[in-house]
Amino acid sequence: MTLVRVYVSLKPSLLDSAGRTVSSALQKLGYPELEEARIGKMIELRLSTVDENRIKEMCEKLLANPVIEDYRFEIVKETVGA
Amino acid sequence: MTLVRVYVSLKPSLLDSAGRTVSSALQKLGYPELEEARIGKMIELRLSTVDENRIKEMCEKLLANPVIEDYRFEIVKETVGA
Repeated sequence: MTLVRVYVSLKPSLLDSAGRTVSSALQKLGYPELEEARIGKMIELRLSTVDENRIKEMCEKLLANPVIEDYRFEIVKETVGA
Repeated sequence: MTLVRVYVSLKPSLLDSAGRTVSSALQKLGYPELEEARIGKMIELRLSTVDENRIKEMCEKLLANPVIEDYRFEIVKETVGA
């Protein structure tokens, strides 16, 4: 079984209002060094067989919205068995 | 300015219902090789100064809920200027 991590983030040109909220909360908690926070998703997939083209399809069909989001993925490890 | 990526995931023992939904949707879309999907967060922080202890504090105070979530972070790059 293989673990694949997909990272989905809002395109840099778009306003991330949840990120703004986190950033302002952290500044108020005493972290003025924080200049910006942006929030994305990390999706961990466990696959019995790995085919990069099929992973791309999953990202484009369901996991990311290509109009407003970028994605990248990494194949983390091939575990023995199962 | 330095980019730090924080990854927050639900502890492995907890049921991830959003992940279950994604997993069942992908199986129905024709990806039977998907055995499990779990959804977490990726938070990108841009910091003017980096102190690992302060990043840990931010994670524990606001970004992750240590009761139900695990987190890890990586310092991605130190950009010149600003």
